[in-house]
Amino acid sequence: MSQTTVSAPAPDSALRTRLLRESMSSRAKAVEATIDQLLPPAAGAEGRVVEAMRYATLGGGKRLRGYLAAEVASLFGVDPARFNRVAASVEMLHAYSLVHDDLPAMDDDDLRRGQPSTHRKFDEATAILAGDALQTMAFEILSDAATHSDAAIRIGLVSALAAASGAAGMVGGQMIDMAGEGRALSLPEVERLHALKTGCLIRYAAESGAILGDADLSLRTRIAAYGHDLGAAFQIADDVLDATASAEELGKTAGKDEAAGKSTYVALLGVEGAAREARRVAERAQAYLDCFGAEADRLRDLIQYVVDRRS
Amino acid sequence: MSQTTVSAPAPDSALRTRLLRESMSSRAKAVEATIDQLLPPAAGAEGRVVEAMRYATLGGGKRLRGYLAAEVASLFGVDPARFNRVAASVEMLHAYSLVHDDLPAMDDDDLRRGQPSTHRKFDEATAILAGDALQTMAFEILSDAATHSDAAIRIGLVSALAAASGAAGMVGGQMIDMAGEGRALSLPEVERLHALKTGCLIRYAAESGAILGDADLSLRTRIAAYGHDLGAAFQIADDVLDATASAEELGKTAGKDEAAGKSTYVALLGVEGAAREARRVAERAQAYLDCFGAEADRLRDLIQYVVDRRS
Repeated sequence: MSQTTVSAPAPDSALRTRLLRESMSSRAKAVEATIDQLLPPAAGAEGRVVEAMRYATLGGGKRLRGYLAAEVASLFGVDPARFNRVAASVEMLHAYSLVHDDLPAMDDDDLRRGQPSTHRKFDEATAILAGDALQTMAFEILSDAATHSDAAIRIGLVSALAAASGAAGMVGGQMIDMAGEGRALSLPEVERLHALKTGCLIRYAAESGAILGDADLSLRTRIAAYGHDLGAAFQIADDVLDATASAEELGKTAGKDEAAGKSTYVALLGVEGAAREARRVAERAQAYLDCFGAEADRLRDLIQYVVDRRS
Repeated sequence: MSQTTVSAPAPDSALRTRLLRESMSSRAKAVEATIDQLLPPAAGAEGRVVEAMRYATLGGGKRLRGYLAAEVASLFGVDPARFNRVAASVEMLHAYSLVHDDLPAMDDDDLRRGQPSTHRKFDEATAILAGDALQTMAFEILSDAATHSDAAIRIGLVSALAAASGAAGMVGGQMIDMAGEGRALSLPEVERLHALKTGCLIRYAAESGAILGDADLSLRTRIAAYGHDLGAAFQIADDVLDATASAEELGKTAGKDEAAGKSTYVALLGVEGAAREARRVAERAQAYLDCFGAEADRLRDLIQYVVDRRS
């Protein structure tokens, strides 16, 4: 019996993969519709920046962060009208960081999801302002999301605070990332870089769902730890993809990390070693969900999805 | 009797000017100390961005926005420990907008308060990230400022919302400003531009003090309207200064508006006409304070200060 046959997904696994994809696609549509509704129409003299905000946020994509926020909130019985707004604000924070990271002064990336990055589609000034305004709007939505009861207000505030730590992490991580170009970082340094740059926001996305659901501290902590490790697995898999996938598969320039002399998991551990590390972290993420039943299966399958993805 | 003698300040007016300057200087010191305490030390791999955040916020300056927040809060009996944090967050929002506006892709300004602007002192990427992180931190402080009682939480939230509208205004205003370069804007267009670009945040600064003081809606609205007109008078005076003062007096490049083909109050109304307009708006700002007694004298004198300043 060949190895391929041994590791082929069981029918149950194929079904779960399909269910996850359907769930992601349906939640992504709801988040996209919410973003569309929250962003003002692109009118008036300042219309160009609103157009760029719409371009940067409404271009589709996996919506991993929004999905996490929505799926975790749903696990805790939160109403979709409430979690979709928070999921939208998380996606806005993510989009703001991508728009700024792609700028010529930063990673100088011309492509994003196979389309011109925001500063290439518009111009640098508009891209800077659109990113700025997306961050503002994310916090505005989080504040506004909580105006009905005292409990909801408290939830909104804590949520905004957690978002702030997620957003602050992105800046610190990007700074380390750029400072590290051309210099070999150690594995702990690379781990810290990614924990800040992408990990903080993915962790927050998961945690925001638990906050909205008023989860007790122990469950909230487990969900946050799950989000942290999911984010780490995602990032390691990203490094592997950058080294092995084509630009067409990625929808962005491939092999950029190596060209920029960036220290990646692949540079430190090799492709095979990095893939092994991704699986190790993924298993740790699974363990944080042990206290949940079948209702957390989508979150479990999401870990495998993140490690196995080809784009 | 010469005109100079007629308009010379009465002894009472000279005393009030001195009291205002002392009050501004003392509140600026308290806000500066609060910012210094709130910003993390510049350590670790991401230290450079923190250094830039400190550079952009701790360089002194008039602290008009922080002063407004603190002075209005004080008028409503708020404790300094509470209003200094909010004043610090308003100054962080202001600093973030200046750092981004100075960028090469935006106004391309090399000088700010007589010192190299942040991207000249550091680099573009660091300046973009420092601005991003200052905005994040401002919202973090506003959220965190309110964790003790339900009333305080509500206040914090409303305050964050108002800050968001101030921050969103800055982006819209900057976009119109750049889109308008080389094209003649009408007076209503210029008024709208400035109402967004500088007016929203100055208005919010004043309003935040009233929010912290739990002022009733009618007083809060009057304070916000005062802030709005103070901001407008400030901007018109700024246009007059740009056209008439030296770079040394300004601490930044002079005559830049005309060189950039920007539509200013001076371009539309002439130096004399613009100065007259500043006085007219200043009188309207005064009227909003009629319901207050001598305890609002500093806020009254601030209007005159803003119109008369030479830097």
